[in-house]
Amino acid sequence: MNPGIKINGDRLLGRLGRFARIGATPAGGVNRQALSPEDRLARAELAGLAADRGFAVFQDSMANLFIRREGRSPSHPPFLIGSHLDSQPMGGRFDGALGTLAAFEVLESLDDADIQTPVAVEMVAWTNEEGSRFAPGAMGSMAFASRAIPAEWHTVRSSDGKLLKDELTDTLAALPHARMRRLGTPVSGYLELHIEQGPSLERENIPIGIVHGIQGTRWLEVVVTGQTAHAGTTQLSFRRDPLVAATEALQTLYNSVMPNDEQARLTIGRISVEPASINAIPGKVSFSVDLRHPDAQELARLENQVQAICEEKAVGHGCEATVRRTFDMPPAQFAPPLLQAVEQAATRLGIAYKPMLSGAFHDALFLARVTDAAMIFVPCRDGLSHNEAEYVEPEHAVLGAQMLLESTLIALDGI
Amino acid sequence: MNPGIKINGDRLLGRLGRFARIGATPAGGVNRQALSPEDRLARAELAGLAADRGFAVFQDSMANLFIRREGRSPSHPPFLIGSHLDSQPMGGRFDGALGTLAAFEVLESLDDADIQTPVAVEMVAWTNEEGSRFAPGAMGSMAFASRAIPAEWHTVRSSDGKLLKDELTDTLAALPHARMRRLGTPVSGYLELHIEQGPSLERENIPIGIVHGIQGTRWLEVVVTGQTAHAGTTQLSFRRDPLVAATEALQTLYNSVMPNDEQARLTIGRISVEPASINAIPGKVSFSVDLRHPDAQELARLENQVQAICEEKAVGHGCEATVRRTFDMPPAQFAPPLLQAVEQAATRLGIAYKPMLSGAFHDALFLARVTDAAMIFVPCRDGLSHNEAEYVEPEHAVLGAQMLLESTLIALDGI
Repeated sequence: MNPGIKINGDRLLGRLGRFARIGATPAGGVNRQALSPEDRLARAELAGLAADRGFAVFQDSMANLFIRREGRSPSHPPFLIGSHLDSQPMGGRFDGALGTLAAFEVLESLDDADIQTPVAVEMVAWTNEEGSRFAPGAMGSMAFASRAIPAEWHTVRSSDGKLLKDELTDTLAALPHARMRRLGTPVSGYLELHIEQGPSLERENIPIGIVHGIQGTRWLEVVVTGQTAHAGTTQLSFRRDPLVAATEALQTLYNSVMPNDEQARLTIGRISVEPASINAIPGKVSFSVDLRHPDAQELARLENQVQAICEEKAVGHGCEATVRRTFDMPPAQFAPPLLQAVEQAATRLGIAYKPMLSGAFHDALFLARVTDAAMIFVPCRDGLSHNEAEYVEPEHAVLGAQMLLESTLIALDGI
Repeated sequence: MNPGIKINGDRLLGRLGRFARIGATPAGGVNRQALSPEDRLARAELAGLAADRGFAVFQDSMANLFIRREGRSPSHPPFLIGSHLDSQPMGGRFDGALGTLAAFEVLESLDDADIQTPVAVEMVAWTNEEGSRFAPGAMGSMAFASRAIPAEWHTVRSSDGKLLKDELTDTLAALPHARMRRLGTPVSGYLELHIEQGPSLERENIPIGIVHGIQGTRWLEVVVTGQTAHAGTTQLSFRRDPLVAATEALQTLYNSVMPNDEQARLTIGRISVEPASINAIPGKVSFSVDLRHPDAQELARLENQVQAICEEKAVGHGCEATVRRTFDMPPAQFAPPLLQAVEQAATRLGIAYKPMLSGAFHDALFLARVTDAAMIFVPCRDGLSHNEAEYVEPEHAVLGAQMLLESTLIALDGI
């Protein structure tokens, strides 16, 4: 169907620049946290652009924002493309915004070329992907996929003390002309363009990643308890130092988990001790473990390994370890037919690509539970994201949008 | 000189109990921080007991409190015995109080037995040994030894926001009948009874430790800098994780420093990471190192070893380490003649003793810089101190006071 349509690269880049000014930080990043005044400004800007084009604008009870370009069969579920508009507190200009604005660019390019698609194509901006102002992240897509807002979110407050439900109400009210639709309205597919947020495409000099799935993630909280004592008076044989036990456990894990399996990820992002006094042997050490693996069984095995090693090393130093799972996100596999459409698009456009897995969560993870979903990655400089210095080469941004358009057209052929 | 004088054990134990009520905490400990209302009450109580006996009371500009029982030669520098009255915020009843009240008991026992000593014997209660309300600790004895209050202390504020100098003024004013004397007035010797604050006497079932010196202490602050990155997207070869480097360094140090030298102490009491996010590889790890050794050269060698290992492990993981010394307390050796007097006292009393080193600082460390000094330790249960559960067997408290009296008498023979 109509191959050869080009997106308008200048328009996309200009728009990325304009949206980067909404919540701009001094060092060139963006602070546009979920449901904040800045987030509302960005939504209003996009809704205004939609109105100029005559595209219908919808919201659901999670304030997910949909912009619809009608297709031949209005009653058939739309094909969804998009990402999110919210950012980290000191985030970059591309994380989320690229995928959302490229999706809008696809609608405009289809419009400019006067293409009639078999079903409607909708751009979506999911609410609160980042999870920094309200936890957890990916609230919008998660609620969309389960067609309900979890009861416990009604009491969730933002980092600045506001209730989620109040901020949702005010955000929805800020777009009075948008029509309300039911949460989880059926779609016929979902495709998301995003920056890689890792260094591999850039280092391998490949402009496009076709994302086959998302690693599963488990978060563990390990607490090792020993006995605090005086640093000067307590000789070695009397010590029950939980940091010695934790160090031994971490050393063992660092030396085995990732070196033995290149698909595994092990990160200790937080560690703290009590009483945290220079001249006191700690009585307690707590640390977080972020484990990732594309294979669910391997992930479970890694969790058991962490538990066993922490317990063994604790006992070896007269301490006790408890390991508690605080988060569990099973691996996701994207839909083969949609992946084939994306690969076909790359081939048709003559673009080098790399099949890959995503190490980060994305809204697509939740969409994959209710429809065929897939993702396209473009490189970002030094793999840097969640950082004001986040940067995407203009040619890669444009190429990503072109891939999104081409893949969408090929996918629509199959509907 | 007059061997066979017995201290009044019941009086001492009763007084320990009464002083434990000044700042008593619900769990049986004491909160009597330096220069607080509770500290002033304890000082006033002691000054009142002195007045009842006709002992002269003195204070100096650091509010060190002296109670003097005159000797044959009033112009000769007095022999000083004592400790401190201030406690940790959730401290025990014996740390400091035992040595101070036992010293007062020695004065009373001498008085009861009508002994005329060749020079005056003075009890001292040093100001702010603990360093918890005002930092650093051992302010009173430190200033006494250097005969000056360091200029930077004029702006020191307490944990509750009060200026040290104002609290000193108010504390001095609370004992209007005490005479002021010059800071660092010469003394002819210093002997301090203290609880061990470690488990070795109790475990070896020895009632008396004769302290030959105090370990030297160095505090280092190590900062390892790498690069923060996404826990999910960053594969092993792209990681520059400073916690991996720090873990390797700590593992190496834990496995070598103390296992290779039973006189060495290595404690990591604080560790923190930035940005401390579960799903972010840390960009920076900071930890404290508390190193102790009785030998100054060995201490210097250990510091070099920590520095070399941290730097080597950091480089091995693409990180950088900086090691900064934040505190340096050289080892102290107590005076052989005074130690002989204490050993002779133990022999004369038929008490088992153990020559030992102190792992903790004490006021005696500073006194050793200006006079012959030594210390006597008694066991405390489970080695526990700086803890409301701190406990000393009554018989050990009495034995410690008897040793203080006997040692003082023998030392005075040599003056």
